[in-house]
Amino acid sequence: MKNTAKKVNFDPAEYMQQVGISARAAGRSISRAQTRQKNTALLGAAEALLEAEAALLEANAIDLKLGKDKGLDPALLDRLALNPERVAAMAQGLREVAALPDPVGEMLDLKYRPSGIRVGRMRVPLGVIGIIYESRPNVTADAAALCLKSGNAAILRGGSEALNSNLAIIACMHKGLQSAGLPEEAVQMLQATDRSLVGLLLKMKDSVDVIIPRGGKSLIQRVSAESAIPVIKHLDGVCHVYIDEEADLAMAKSIALNAKTHRYGVCNAMETLLLAEAVAAEILPGLGREFIKAGVELRGCEHSRRLVPEMKQATEEDWYAEYLAPVLAVKVVKDIDMAIEHIETYGSHHSDAIVTDSYVNANRFLAEVDSSSVLVNASTRFADGFEYGLGAEIGISTDKLHARGPVGLEGLTTLKYVVFGEGQIRQ
Amino acid sequence: MKNTAKKVNFDPAEYMQQVGISARAAGRSISRAQTRQKNTALLGAAEALLEAEAALLEANAIDLKLGKDKGLDPALLDRLALNPERVAAMAQGLREVAALPDPVGEMLDLKYRPSGIRVGRMRVPLGVIGIIYESRPNVTADAAALCLKSGNAAILRGGSEALNSNLAIIACMHKGLQSAGLPEEAVQMLQATDRSLVGLLLKMKDSVDVIIPRGGKSLIQRVSAESAIPVIKHLDGVCHVYIDEEADLAMAKSIALNAKTHRYGVCNAMETLLLAEAVAAEILPGLGREFIKAGVELRGCEHSRRLVPEMKQATEEDWYAEYLAPVLAVKVVKDIDMAIEHIETYGSHHSDAIVTDSYVNANRFLAEVDSSSVLVNASTRFADGFEYGLGAEIGISTDKLHARGPVGLEGLTTLKYVVFGEGQIRQ
Repeated sequence: MKNTAKKVNFDPAEYMQQVGISARAAGRSISRAQTRQKNTALLGAAEALLEAEAALLEANAIDLKLGKDKGLDPALLDRLALNPERVAAMAQGLREVAALPDPVGEMLDLKYRPSGIRVGRMRVPLGVIGIIYESRPNVTADAAALCLKSGNAAILRGGSEALNSNLAIIACMHKGLQSAGLPEEAVQMLQATDRSLVGLLLKMKDSVDVIIPRGGKSLIQRVSAESAIPVIKHLDGVCHVYIDEEADLAMAKSIALNAKTHRYGVCNAMETLLLAEAVAAEILPGLGREFIKAGVELRGCEHSRRLVPEMKQATEEDWYAEYLAPVLAVKVVKDIDMAIEHIETYGSHHSDAIVTDSYVNANRFLAEVDSSSVLVNASTRFADGFEYGLGAEIGISTDKLHARGPVGLEGLTTLKYVVFGEGQIRQ
Repeated sequence: MKNTAKKVNFDPAEYMQQVGISARAAGRSISRAQTRQKNTALLGAAEALLEAEAALLEANAIDLKLGKDKGLDPALLDRLALNPERVAAMAQGLREVAALPDPVGEMLDLKYRPSGIRVGRMRVPLGVIGIIYESRPNVTADAAALCLKSGNAAILRGGSEALNSNLAIIACMHKGLQSAGLPEEAVQMLQATDRSLVGLLLKMKDSVDVIIPRGGKSLIQRVSAESAIPVIKHLDGVCHVYIDEEADLAMAKSIALNAKTHRYGVCNAMETLLLAEAVAAEILPGLGREFIKAGVELRGCEHSRRLVPEMKQATEEDWYAEYLAPVLAVKVVKDIDMAIEHIETYGSHHSDAIVTDSYVNANRFLAEVDSSSVLVNASTRFADGFEYGLGAEIGISTDKLHARGPVGLEGLTTLKYVVFGEGQIRQ
């Protein structure tokens, strides 16, 4: 693939078929590449990015100019922009993925069976991963690196507004692959100029094993609805902190403030604070003042509003809301039963925390809150691949099957059964 | 639900909504049931089955009569028939599931992170499982038992020809649940008289977490195509045995014969035999005679036919065929590369075996054959939940995501992240 967007007429179906066939072939090759080879490719790509800084910034300038001409909003343009620091950060990201242990080939639970065979499971790549994402060009390098390290081929479809930047980044990935003797087709970027390509990609069951959409809710909903291929996705982050009647109130205050105000626009930020009736009067007036001081708008139930009169009245919609902003819904609940009931009714099964000193309530919350991360006495902001020690993450899954919670290299692999015999036959 | 099929008019959409809501509620209750409670329910259901033998046989007689009147073929009627031995076997199956370890609550990989939090994963039920299957009524007891033991609610949809038998079995499951103080709605059987129910079930994303179809290929294809819910499925079993040039030929012969002739109608039976050129002339004439003596029709490539003149000529379709019958495709290949190439091109990624004494070739086959089970020096017939020690299986998945290969209790669970802190906040 050339380092420029194709503008000529071409047949999308034929093009995608070719992409699929070459990705499948490259996937087989990359699935059996040695760890050293994959690392060589990643380190080579990091070098190539640093060497190509000027070309990257030039390609990015074209995207930025087109974006400005199209009237993209400044926040989007900022996410789109590359600069020397961001290029260096991409290269550093590739080096960090190279330093992670190779998940492929791990052998688990190998045990003898009464028949004499030994049975276990072996970690292997998924095959070909399709990733559909929006404006940030650094996702191109990150996603390609994680797929490569986990032995998968990647078909990437970045935002059309970042096309020139993405193609320049992919050219560096290709240099890395070349330097390791691996096929370039292991990382392919779709030509984003034709919107029908995504629709075609989502139907390529024979050549793509999983689709990972990264971006806004409408992108993810479209991909989930249309895809004939299994999707690993992240939908909402309506996260709760529940302050139990047995909570250490100083700890509760610190965790609640951190979960909301550490960063507002992230999926693991608290959106609703729940408080046990027994402690609400003691903690909420002071905690409410702290939130207001921090610039957080509070929307509460009747009970909360009696304790913090500055609060607005919460509506039913507030309990479902993922604000991603300095707004917080607040509700006083009778006890842990009502807290769990609220979370299961209104939550999004992302990340929910309890603050408590009760052994029984901690265990009940862990067992009964059906979320991808359940935290005891810690801020919801810890629900993150880096904080969990995955080294890197391709996203946070709110699905239940396959990968749940932060998805790292392991989430891009699967386990197959392996059997070692010495000639055994079924009796 | 009463122990008879509803014949009155009812609104399918309203009915299914009620099924979904009650299954979700029962699922939450069963997800936190203690191991002892779940086992009490299973043992109680086993007792109830034995006590209800007369009622079961009576209900089954109605199904058999309706089936005969409809002109169902004898093989289908045989699969549908219950007798005292089959009732006892169902009860025994429930007792065996009760004896299995409870997968729920297992805590894995709990480790301290530099931030001071401890992070691990906890095994939890999936929630609500929809199972769509065909004629054998014993699947009703098996599937319900596996869902119950793994803490999931089940919505079952058996074949319409087995409806009366299935409802009688479900009544016994309900007695077991009652005796343990668990909600009956944890196991629900759809009224099979209305075909629109399956279509509705496949769209109930909010109340069903996974769909497992069990039956013929057309059922599984319909379910996969229509389902808005993730599907764990088993499609084809085009299994291979490859006799490598480094094989012990006596072992190879024994494994090949067992993989084909032990049972013909099963998904892990060999359908294509591959032989390395270097050993074909030595092993194939004798092995071919053994197959012919066992009544197996052979369809071979040119090379094979020169060695076994009784063979028919194989066509391209034969390499893709899942015969499930005494027919075997045979191909001589140059070496392990061509064997792997053949398996990846024509196989169904189910279960494939190599017979070899070569360390290098065994490892290459393990790493490069992308199947749910890969076996070295053992018959493909071992690819089975019982043989692998899962205790019981709900099916064999040929999918890559979530569960791959035989699916036991663990495949009906998921891992969520759990975090234990002492007040940690993100810096």
